[in-house]
Amino acid sequence: MPRYALKVEYNGQPFSGWQRQQDLPTVQGAIEAALARLEPRAHTIAGAGRTDAGVHALGQVAQCDMDKDWDPFRLSEALNFHLKPDPVAIVACARVAEDWHARFSAVERRYLFRLVARRAPLTFEKGLVWRVPHGLDLGAMQAGAAHLVGRHDFTTFRSSICQADSPVKTLDALEIEQQPRVDGGTEFRFHVRARSFLHNQVRSFVGTLERVGAGAWDPEQVKTALEARDRAACGPVCPPDGLYLAGVGYPEDPFGGI
Amino acid sequence: MPRYALKVEYNGQPFSGWQRQQDLPTVQGAIEAALARLEPRAHTIAGAGRTDAGVHALGQVAQCDMDKDWDPFRLSEALNFHLKPDPVAIVACARVAEDWHARFSAVERRYLFRLVARRAPLTFEKGLVWRVPHGLDLGAMQAGAAHLVGRHDFTTFRSSICQADSPVKTLDALEIEQQPRVDGGTEFRFHVRARSFLHNQVRSFVGTLERVGAGAWDPEQVKTALEARDRAACGPVCPPDGLYLAGVGYPEDPFGGI
Repeated sequence: MPRYALKVEYNGQPFSGWQRQQDLPTVQGAIEAALARLEPRAHTIAGAGRTDAGVHALGQVAQCDMDKDWDPFRLSEALNFHLKPDPVAIVACARVAEDWHARFSAVERRYLFRLVARRAPLTFEKGLVWRVPHGLDLGAMQAGAAHLVGRHDFTTFRSSICQADSPVKTLDALEIEQQPRVDGGTEFRFHVRARSFLHNQVRSFVGTLERVGAGAWDPEQVKTALEARDRAACGPVCPPDGLYLAGVGYPEDPFGGI
Repeated sequence: MPRYALKVEYNGQPFSGWQRQQDLPTVQGAIEAALARLEPRAHTIAGAGRTDAGVHALGQVAQCDMDKDWDPFRLSEALNFHLKPDPVAIVACARVAEDWHARFSAVERRYLFRLVARRAPLTFEKGLVWRVPHGLDLGAMQAGAAHLVGRHDFTTFRSSICQADSPVKTLDALEIEQQPRVDGGTEFRFHVRARSFLHNQVRSFVGTLERVGAGAWDPEQVKTALEARDRAACGPVCPPDGLYLAGVGYPEDPFGGI
């Protein structure tokens, strides 16, 4: 069966996460239902990252197997037609080898977290960013983040329901940039990159670093928390609102980008 | 009674426009209801621009009269508390003279229109931008827009229900900028500025210029349409989705900006 790679963008707000669940709206379920409109039978797709409820994607990657030999652009157009009105869009589609796998072939996941410091409530981006009503110190958050980069036992930053075999992971990057906003607020963008992540790892990082930015934690306390290897040492886990699966890396980009 | 100027940001999607209407949710109605939580009586506010259903604001300006002598920051905080969960935020508040008027003292209105060219449906900005699935020629739209700037009879670009005394207005600026988007699309931002506008004038401009950008109209046809002084000569009026009241100008900025 011809296999296709799909680059998927979605707004996670109306969904109970990526992974298909009985009787709950999920992104996987929405795409499988759209596929069934094109080739009426049961479809099972696989995604590179299983995002939680309320988490978004700019560049999730999934795979699907079709009976017919579809032109990739036509397949993406037909899926987008049947996905309406769900906030899910296929933004790229490519034919891939039958042994290529969206999840198992992936060598990197990139997440973006958007944190906005502004006094007034948000009117346009509710659910799309995490807003805090106080200022944040970029330098302090960067100093705290530096302790997390590298190969570590991340037990502190792992949800108690995480199913990964080992808490040891290599965090390749955790970069934070600050941007002024036209609304007078300040946006902090966390760019986080690793081969794979533990459950709630990014939200545990951001929730902890926000405490550092607010001055409640010293940057050195991030190191102490990491070395404790104890979930109780973590700062508050932040809401899913500002989290985006930004992209997935493969040995060769299936969509032909550079 | 002490008078206050309010700078108001709102997402127009859930509202039947700015202006209070019996039994319909409006932005004016929401703010007046919040004021009644602070000082229990009937309140009547005035706004600089009466935006239509689905139109947004980054910097609408309104005035309110209070019984008590409120600290402006505390007044904005209290209003934001009572405005929840409506997507309306008071982003600035200042005490003004009792003869200052949000609408009649205004000498300039600035609108922003966001038009996005991208093939796939939108997942994050539905209702917040107007999406078209084809490319647009910036230079052609700019050439068409140049015919509209200045003092003209804008009958062609005025809704049939417009209540302005005269169709003659001076358009101070209609500038269009193009920005690449991370989602692969292209965003066109129309910045439109005048002392005052006719009903549906900006949406009539953008709908017509989109036809120019798409190649369906020659830029010169904008001039012909303007000179026709005939509503039937207008291009299609575009949806309200991408329209924002970006700011209001006064002889002196009540919020103390430069």
